[in-house]
Parts: sequence; C-alpha cells; structure tokens
Amino acid sequence: MEKQVEGITSRDVDFAKWYTDVIKKADLVDYSNVKGSMIIRPYGYAIWENMQNILDKEFKKLGHENVQMPMFIPESLLNVEKDHVEGFAPEVAWVTYGGDEKLDERMCVRPTSETLFCDHYKKIIKSYRDLPKLYNQWCTIVRWEKTTRPFLRSREILWQEGHTMHATEEEARKETLQMFKVYEDFQRNYLALPVIVGKKTDKEKFAGAEETYTIEAMMYDGVALQNGTSHYFGQGFAKAFGIQFLDKDNKLKTPYQTSWGVSTRMIGGLIMTHSDDRGLVLPPRIAPYKVAIVPINDNDLVNNMVEEIKKKLDTNDITYKVIAGDKSPGFRFAEAEVKGYPIRIEIGKRDLENKIITLVRRDTLEKINISINDDIVLVINNLLDKIQKDMYDRALKRRNSMIYSADNYTDFKDIAAKKNGFIKVNWCGSSECELKIKDDTGLKSRCICLDEEADGNCVVCQNKGKYKIYFGKQY
Amino acid sequence: MEKQVEGITSRDVDFAKWYTDVIKKADLVDYSNVKGSMIIRPYGYAIWENMQNILDKEFKKLGHENVQMPMFIPESLLNVEKDHVEGFAPEVAWVTYGGDEKLDERMCVRPTSETLFCDHYKKIIKSYRDLPKLYNQWCTIVRWEKTTRPFLRSREILWQEGHTMHATEEEARKETLQMFKVYEDFQRNYLALPVIVGKKTDKEKFAGAEETYTIEAMMYDGVALQNGTSHYFGQGFAKAFGIQFLDKDNKLKTPYQTSWGVSTRMIGGLIMTHSDDRGLVLPPRIAPYKVAIVPINDNDLVNNMVEEIKKKLDTNDITYKVIAGDKSPGFRFAEAEVKGYPIRIEIGKRDLENKIITLVRRDTLEKINISINDDIVLVINNLLDKIQKDMYDRALKRRNSMIYSADNYTDFKDIAAKKNGFIKVNWCGSSECELKIKDDTGLKSRCICLDEEADGNCVVCQNKGKYKIYFGKQY
Repeated sequence: MEKQVEGITSRDVDFAKWYTDVIKKADLVDYSNVKGSMIIRPYGYAIWENMQNILDKEFKKLGHENVQMPMFIPESLLNVEKDHVEGFAPEVAWVTYGGDEKLDERMCVRPTSETLFCDHYKKIIKSYRDLPKLYNQWCTIVRWEKTTRPFLRSREILWQEGHTMHATEEEARKETLQMFKVYEDFQRNYLALPVIVGKKTDKEKFAGAEETYTIEAMMYDGVALQNGTSHYFGQGFAKAFGIQFLDKDNKLKTPYQTSWGVSTRMIGGLIMTHSDDRGLVLPPRIAPYKVAIVPINDNDLVNNMVEEIKKKLDTNDITYKVIAGDKSPGFRFAEAEVKGYPIRIEIGKRDLENKIITLVRRDTLEKINISINDDIVLVINNLLDKIQKDMYDRALKRRNSMIYSADNYTDFKDIAAKKNGFIKVNWCGSSECELKIKDDTGLKSRCICLDEEADGNCVVCQNKGKYKIYFGKQY
Repeated sequence: MEKQVEGITSRDVDFAKWYTDVIKKADLVDYSNVKGSMIIRPYGYAIWENMQNILDKEFKKLGHENVQMPMFIPESLLNVEKDHVEGFAPEVAWVTYGGDEKLDERMCVRPTSETLFCDHYKKIIKSYRDLPKLYNQWCTIVRWEKTTRPFLRSREILWQEGHTMHATEEEARKETLQMFKVYEDFQRNYLALPVIVGKKTDKEKFAGAEETYTIEAMMYDGVALQNGTSHYFGQGFAKAFGIQFLDKDNKLKTPYQTSWGVSTRMIGGLIMTHSDDRGLVLPPRIAPYKVAIVPINDNDLVNNMVEEIKKKLDTNDITYKVIAGDKSPGFRFAEAEVKGYPIRIEIGKRDLENKIITLVRRDTLEKINISINDDIVLVINNLLDKIQKDMYDRALKRRNSMIYSADNYTDFKDIAAKKNGFIKVNWCGSSECELKIKDDTGLKSRCICLDEEADGNCVVCQNKGKYKIYFGKQY
C-alpha cells in the first residue's frame, strides 16, 4: 500500500499548526538542533534566490552596490548611538571567546549593521564627490528571540540591508521613499501580496530612525506581518559617528542617511496569504518551478509527449519539474499540490488518444482540457499571468473584508475582541492613546496612512484626529 | 595641483606591502575596527559576485542545490567527530550569551559545516531513493586566526561549501574528483591561474577526511596559496552521526560523503599572480568591467564618440566604466590602471581628427591604434580573449621557472634556502620524511602528483620513492 502525502492540519482549525505543517510538508525548512535556527531546504532556498535575484537587479538598476561588512560588532561600536543600542542590546548573541582565549572586548553578531556602515562611511566619505554612497548587503543577522517560528521570527535571519548616505536631506528622503516603493511593487507584483503601506508611529519606529516606512501584509488569519521597512535617519547616526564631508561651498557638513531591508520573512508572508489545506500555493512569478508535469502512465505515447512538452518549455524558459516514478498518479498529484507548482500538466494515455492534455490550476484546482494541437506554451503563459492576477485579487478581496473601522472606543474594543483583521481609525497622534489601545486590546499600530487624512475625532480620546491609522495584531 | 593616484610599493621590494597597497588603492577592501575582519568594498565584492555566478551555474548544472544551515554549532554537535573537533575547536569563536542570559551550552560560529549537514542528513536520508544528496551552501564562516591578511587569512571568510551524500563509494569518489575538476577548470579558464593539482598527504589533509584533493596556486613570490579543496570522507562522519539508509536490496547501509569549497581567498590568488606595481591586473573573464573609457578632452567630437562606443558595448554586453571628470587624463589613466580594467580606450580630439582611437592593454601596457572605422566590438572581444590567454601563459611560464627538483637532501636544503618557489621531489610516503623537511626548511608538502609516478629514491631517506610530490612555503 503506497503512502499518500500525509495530512495537513486545516488552516481554519489551527492556523499555527497548519503553517508549520505546510512548510515542513513542502520541504521548505527543517528544524535544526540549534534552537531558534532553521535549516532552509533547497525548495525554500530557491524561493529566496528568486526574491534575491529580482530585488538585486532592481537595486543595481537604481545605482546601488553590494558590499560585505564584518559579521561582528565590538560592544563599544554598538554603543555609539544611544537609541540604537537600547533597541538591540537585549537581543544580541555575544561572542566572548576566540578559541581558548577570552576576548578583551566582547562582540555581538550583527543584529543589523548601521554601526558598521557608519564606522566605514566615516573613513571613506570626505567630500561631496564621495556622495551619495548607495550600499547594500546580503547577509545573515542574529537576534536572540525567545520564541521563534520559521521565517517569521527566528534567531538567524537572511536579509538584505541597504545603507545610504546623501549630501542633502531631500535626496535622503527621496531614497527612503524610492526603496519603500521598490519593496511595495515587488510584493504586489511578484508575491501577489496586497500590502498596506504607511509610516510607523514614533513608538513603533526603528531604534535610531527619524521615520520608518513599513510594508504591512495581512495574513489569512487577519494578523499583520511587517514585511519590509525603509528608514530615514536624518543626521542622527552621522553625528554620533562624526561623519562629515566638505561640500561644494567648501563648508564641512553632516550627511543624511537611510536604511532599508527585507528578509526571508517574506516567504512566511507568501505562505500565510496564499497557501491552503493541500499545501503551498505559490504566485507564478516567484515560484521556482512554474509547471509540474505528471505522466499518468508509463508508455511511449505518454513519454514522447512528456519529452515534447519539456522541450517546448525549455525553449521558452518555463521552469518545470517532472513528477514521474512508480508511485500512483494520485500520490504524485498530491506532491505537485503540496509544493505549490502553479500549473500541473497531467499527461495520460486515454487523454492523448482523445487528443487531450489536462492542465490543473494549483490556486483554484480548476481543470482545463486543451487539445494536443493547441499552442501549449501560449496557453501556459496566459494561464500563469491569470493565476498571478487572480491570486492578488483574491488576497485583496479577503484583506478588504477584514478591515474594520470604528468611531468610538467601545466599538473599537468590541471589534478587537470579536474580529480578526485590522481596524482603521482616526487618531490624535498621542502615544498615550496608542498605548491605551495596546494595553486594553493587545493591538498595536500598524501604520499611519500616507494618502488618507483624518476625517473625524480620535477613536480613543475623541480629541481632533490627526491621522488615519491601522491597528492590528502582529506576528 | 591635482593629486595623482598615490604610489604603490614595488612588489620586488616588499611583496607583502605591495599586496596590501594594491588591495587598498584598488578599493577592494577596507580594514574595519573588528580585528581580523575586513570590509569587502563594492569593487572587491563585484569580483566575488562574478566568481559566485559562474560557479553557482556550474554547480547547478551538475545537479547541486543550494541550502542554508544554521550559523551556530552547539559544542556537543561539534564534538561528534573526533578528528574534526580537534582540528577546529582551537580556532572557533564562541557565543556564550544571548542578550543578558548565559547559554546553557555554548555554541561556536561555524568554522565549516560538516556537523550541521550530517545532523540534517541523519533526519532526511532514509532510503536509497533519498540519495544522492547534492547540497551546497554560500555563506560566511569564522576561524579565529591570530595573524590575518585580507582575502588570504581572515577571521571571517566568504565561501561556498558543498556537502554530498552517496549510496556508493564509487559515486562519492567520482563526485570528489568531479568538483575538484570544476575548481581546476574555473581557476585556469576564468582566473588565468596555472594551478597545480594533487592530493594532500595524510598530515596535511582536512580534519576528518579520508582524502583531500587540493588546488595549489603559486604566487608571484613563489609562495603557495591553497586555493580550493575537495574532500572524500568515506563513511567517517556518517558513522559518527549514525546516518543510514535502506538500500534497494533491503539492507541498512551507511552512505559515503564528500565536501568541497572555495572562498574569497581566490581574489587574493588573482592579485598575487597577475597584478603589478601600477595596481590590479584582472583577467577579462572575471573582471567586473572589461573596458575603461577615458575621454581625454571634453567637447562634442569626443563626447559623441564616447556615447557611440558606450552604445555598441551595451548592445554587446561588454561591461565598461567611463572615467571622465575634471581630473587630468594622466590621473584618470592611472585610475583605470590601478583598478585593472583589462582594456582602456582613450578618446582624444586630435586622435579623432586623425580618425584614430587608442586602446591600451592593462596587462602589457601596449598601445594599439585602431581606425574609427574598425569594428570596435570585434577588436575588443578579440583583444579580451588574447589578454586572457596571454595572462595565463605568462603566469604559467613564471610558475614553471620557479619549480625546482632535487635528488638528494643537501640539494633540497640548498634550494629551499636560496630559491623561492616549489621543489618537486620523489618521496617515500613517510610522515617522518615529510616532517623532517618541514622542521629543517619550513617547507610543507603542497600535493602529491596525480599523473606522475616516482622515478627515484626519496629525497630525504633515499629509500624507494613512492610518490612525486611538491614542497613549498604557503600563505
């Protein structure tokens, strides 16, 4: 008796269990014996490589260059910027010994690299000619989290961090927003995530930043995932590190700084937005393999057609996996489903005798019969586009159905208690009201809307509203 | 008065100083405040990215998949394989605290990842169907070196490490040699390094390996750089970790293992083989920019030609840098030279009036006048090929001129004292003779020749020779 792909807990029964089932069954990660550190398996890493390739091209197109900073930060260097060290020191891993020797000064594994970049910029920025500096780094960072979940919150995070320096405030602000837009476009267009974008409140912004712009994705369960941030630092770090340049007017000035990053957390966001009880559902534009080819029988007629289709896909750079072997077609269909290949092509003897090939959409499970005389490459490309679009639209519809509004605090608390999702409200801008919401309901501010003004009084204090803002629970 | 690119110490005067001058002036690295850790600047990182892209494609073509293992190894895991822990424990960085809490068990930052891969393989390898596993990882490793030199010996090393598991010894041995050949071909064909390849002696092999195959490059000063290794592990780690699989014959068996790696050390090898007193000289096939375009004057005639050439190079995917600006042509020529762009195109008003464009080879500094009516793309492509080949041939000639042979130990010691380079000798195969050479002369065995037999008595003990072997100093 063949073993079928084992069951996945239903996402409507136990979302957390469903999530870990999916990432395990789809072979994205494995747990390691190092607590809080995961192993990213080939299929998971291939998704990350796709993300990297697309973003890296985009960064370079905009003039950014990749560099590699040290992995360790001496304690004295971490301490240079006050807000920054307070934000990060409690959650870093400390190296205290090299071999058998105790270090004179302990060093942490970088939780983020602002201090390292500033230390370097101080040495290499002397003149306006040296600006802007548009550096990016792909690396692993470490944050010593107590509770961890693969991709969402782990002790080691694969990410990229852009760190840029500019001669003027205007240019730095432009860069902050430009990279924010790059992230937004990437997540909408490639990951099919209908993200909400905006600005973090002072309470929620990055340790050391003047402004933090955030990409907030809503997961299937209504919980927010902060899925990328872009920070405007002003001159804070630059002053703390004593970075100055001689400007065209022959005056010594302090440059303006940004940083921005996204991480493997985006893979978690992908899963918790699109996947279902059969496993992964990947948007075609980020899927490592666009197509699964499943031969139903093993004979010349079928095998020749498999070869013919493979050839056509190769020629047209459509990636695919053939799922053949001695396991039953049902088992192999399930394997294609759990891995989330956007389209499955079923090739069977009886179908071929009827001049038919069956395509199955992973997102809707809809079956589509095409003639063996159809232009299969054209059909597949069109279908991939349609799947990509439909996945975005479905996620958007779902997201919108889970955004609530409240005019008064009683309603707010009622919604917070009964509904999953975001609550969009008017807010006076005070940290007191923001904190009250958190204390009373557990909801944190997600982001201040950039393109929408307050149109009423603050949902908590009923003073004049200053901002439209989203509140929600978060991963 | 404009500042010219500052002088580089002559490599014949002080090779070590020359090396650090070149990497600093060419903007490859900067020193950081973290002792032993370097900053890889954009130009240096672009060389590494080229290396990665070429090798990664090659690995994937041969069926390998990329993964990401944890960065930390718990002490108990490092201890599983006895030889391995003895080899690495003295030089690892230990993490002992997470935030304010002392860890129950300290963890080292990976110095290499055999133990992590084996721990994972134990979980995922159950049946012959799960084999082979052909995994590779691009990552940073840490080895707590006392004395460090950028690219050659640093505490943090960017590298790739392949780790594979096979059902049979034959297959694992084939993999070991296959990846060894990939490294050799890459270094010969892209890096223009006339490497010597062979097997390490038992004394010099990797901690835990049955056999280590090594790529030995000879630097300009005659010192060897171990520039890549491929290890056959047999079943040592697999047994220590209890990895077993059910074979087709329904018997539980232990798989056979390999690992193989190259690192940013290859950049050091590139520099110390090809570069000169004017700075970097890069082989065209690995150079981030193949061409430097230097406009000598700033007027329409010149600028139009610059645009025309840029367009042609863009269309033909020939990477270039335009070095314009208000600095003197001499200053800008020097900048092109120090960065090692393989070809410099000088575009001047007077030349253009005479229908001439000047090309300058970086490797020989030879000037070549071409007509503005020549097919410049064809000329450049041919010249790049010629530079690549000539660089290899020159390095090979130099290498061969620094390989000596000795029939008796008096001669050997005499050469070791007076000459820089390798000494190729017959060797009986005993560790005593190998150790005696090291103690008497400081020379270590580089590698046992694979394609050449002993043809005389051991250079030390005069017993029957078993192997042809190279000895030399090493970085």
